[in-house]
Amino acid sequence: MTEINFSDFVNAMPTEDKNTVALRVTVLGGGSFGTAIANTAARNGCDTTLWIRDAKTAQEINEKHVNTRYLPDFKLDKNLKVSSDIEQAVRDKDLILVTIPSHSFRSVLQKIKPFITAQAVISLTKGIEVDSFKFMSEIIREELPQVPYGVLSGPNLAKEIVAGMPAGTVVASHSERVRFAVQKALHSALFRVFASDDVHGVELGGALKNIYAVAMGMAAAHKVGENTRSMILTRALAEMSRFAVKLGANPLTFLGLSGVGDLFATCTSPLSRNYQIGFALGQGKTLEQAIKDLGQTAEGINTIIQVRKRAIELDVYMPITNALYEVIFEHAPPLNIALSLMKNGHRSDVEFVLPHRDV
Amino acid sequence: MTEINFSDFVNAMPTEDKNTVALRVTVLGGGSFGTAIANTAARNGCDTTLWIRDAKTAQEINEKHVNTRYLPDFKLDKNLKVSSDIEQAVRDKDLILVTIPSHSFRSVLQKIKPFITAQAVISLTKGIEVDSFKFMSEIIREELPQVPYGVLSGPNLAKEIVAGMPAGTVVASHSERVRFAVQKALHSALFRVFASDDVHGVELGGALKNIYAVAMGMAAAHKVGENTRSMILTRALAEMSRFAVKLGANPLTFLGLSGVGDLFATCTSPLSRNYQIGFALGQGKTLEQAIKDLGQTAEGINTIIQVRKRAIELDVYMPITNALYEVIFEHAPPLNIALSLMKNGHRSDVEFVLPHRDV
Repeated sequence: MTEINFSDFVNAMPTEDKNTVALRVTVLGGGSFGTAIANTAARNGCDTTLWIRDAKTAQEINEKHVNTRYLPDFKLDKNLKVSSDIEQAVRDKDLILVTIPSHSFRSVLQKIKPFITAQAVISLTKGIEVDSFKFMSEIIREELPQVPYGVLSGPNLAKEIVAGMPAGTVVASHSERVRFAVQKALHSALFRVFASDDVHGVELGGALKNIYAVAMGMAAAHKVGENTRSMILTRALAEMSRFAVKLGANPLTFLGLSGVGDLFATCTSPLSRNYQIGFALGQGKTLEQAIKDLGQTAEGINTIIQVRKRAIELDVYMPITNALYEVIFEHAPPLNIALSLMKNGHRSDVEFVLPHRDV
Repeated sequence: MTEINFSDFVNAMPTEDKNTVALRVTVLGGGSFGTAIANTAARNGCDTTLWIRDAKTAQEINEKHVNTRYLPDFKLDKNLKVSSDIEQAVRDKDLILVTIPSHSFRSVLQKIKPFITAQAVISLTKGIEVDSFKFMSEIIREELPQVPYGVLSGPNLAKEIVAGMPAGTVVASHSERVRFAVQKALHSALFRVFASDDVHGVELGGALKNIYAVAMGMAAAHKVGENTRSMILTRALAEMSRFAVKLGANPLTFLGLSGVGDLFATCTSPLSRNYQIGFALGQGKTLEQAIKDLGQTAEGINTIIQVRKRAIELDVYMPITNALYEVIFEHAPPLNIALSLMKNGHRSDVEFVLPHRDV
């Protein structure tokens, strides 16, 4: 049992004074992003543990201070502890930051449930649970209904964070204390943590952006210009925010780092898997060929399937997502994407400014 | 005198029927964008005139159907008429589209005033009038107080438009008739015209974006990563929308083509003058050196001076614009830009979602 209640603890700690009791932070998941975030917290003076499933890897990182698999070129902070014992990692902590992939997210929460007392749980995972179409914040609420929770999302390439290049991210929570604690744990001169209370809006940005990286890759195969690329980005934001608003989010959240910021980073990275799959599809390859050439599939493909299904159920107009689905699964020509942009259905630029019926 | 009143005319014309009386459109200004837009209207079946100050150039384009100075590689529509007679160009028209640079915008409006009866006047010019800090829509209202008016702005490289690459733009007007007429005149399968009623928001996007192209160029000189570029883009949107809201605009407009769309195009074009001046400044050159190397100045420099002054008067927090000013005019190191992004003053991601005081 933790002796200090999470909320008392956060209240008691003034921002300015670095000499108070260190926040006890655990990051679940030792991929590149989890490692980078744990390293950031450790550098910030938090009492930080990184939980990794594999005991041998945990021991190796503890000894060498390098995550040879995911971030081989970076020396990690000496004070970062790595553990494969989940009870030890989770008990008596203040913040649990979860970077577990979406398909295992729920099962890891079930595993930590017996050790949760007053910890806050923050999802750093971008994605949607397959089949259930649940977001990570919803899984937290279902599995750990009592905990204070939040999500963190933004354009955050792990390699750039550990290299100390300036970056920003967004923590979203309905609890001011959770937002404050996450900012305290991770904010530094080179990693800026902005706050929001729009949990769904923030996590939807991270979950949906991969769809549009596929579209951008497909467009690149057709050598589109700046005008077209800008239109793809903007129409992507229009349908993302339209979808998000239907789920209760605030469209203005998409103006921020977790929305357009993450979308911009994703859509201007020709090396991302989503972009490359899109490029291959744009060249006229089938999905099977594209996956075979790339050696793996991309998150965006699964997101397209799920979001299209949900958009039909919710009656949300998502022409780009639909066009992608038709190209990938219904043999429509890749130029379908361009046509979807030019469709005359919705003529308002931003429908939350001027409703379509008033155009 | 026009025999058909502008408003009656628009009302009487159904969208579907292309065989009704053609809209009479005049584009003032024969630069690359003016020429591309006039060509678009002519292709759309409008009775279109392009007004160019120089009689010889006008005659040459009429004969060759090529604008050899600005768009030498493109054959223009045969039905496009070019005139250097401003009275003939403006009288008895339905739409006057003004693509005159901001420093001559007012004087051209004064020239056409005697010939204005029921025409609508639309500004296609991105910029701010030097000294007065007036936007183009304000100049229209001052010089032609009776006319229905609007603005058109978006990520619209002229060369891509005449080449028929898919593009989109935004027309903003308080008048539904003006919006409808501009959509009718310019909308086609390859050029999509979205509508908005946020005139100030739409024109501010086009006027302010050059500031951030300078910042992006400066950052590129320091080899920043994707995380930092995304943060510059997002913080740019934050301060643009903050400034615009102070002037009565809707922050959601910045989610659209004239906001983030145009900003994205500008910030990902390393060949733009603003970007190149920023790059030179980032390398530690003085403004004088940078201008000398480039052979000319960039619009963004003037915009920085004007917007900073206005932001101080309006008490709007614009850390990037300020930092740029300090680097260019007050000998601050170029890294100032990075520091301005990391300043801890405002910690909300999107202040219109979560006010700074509540973070």
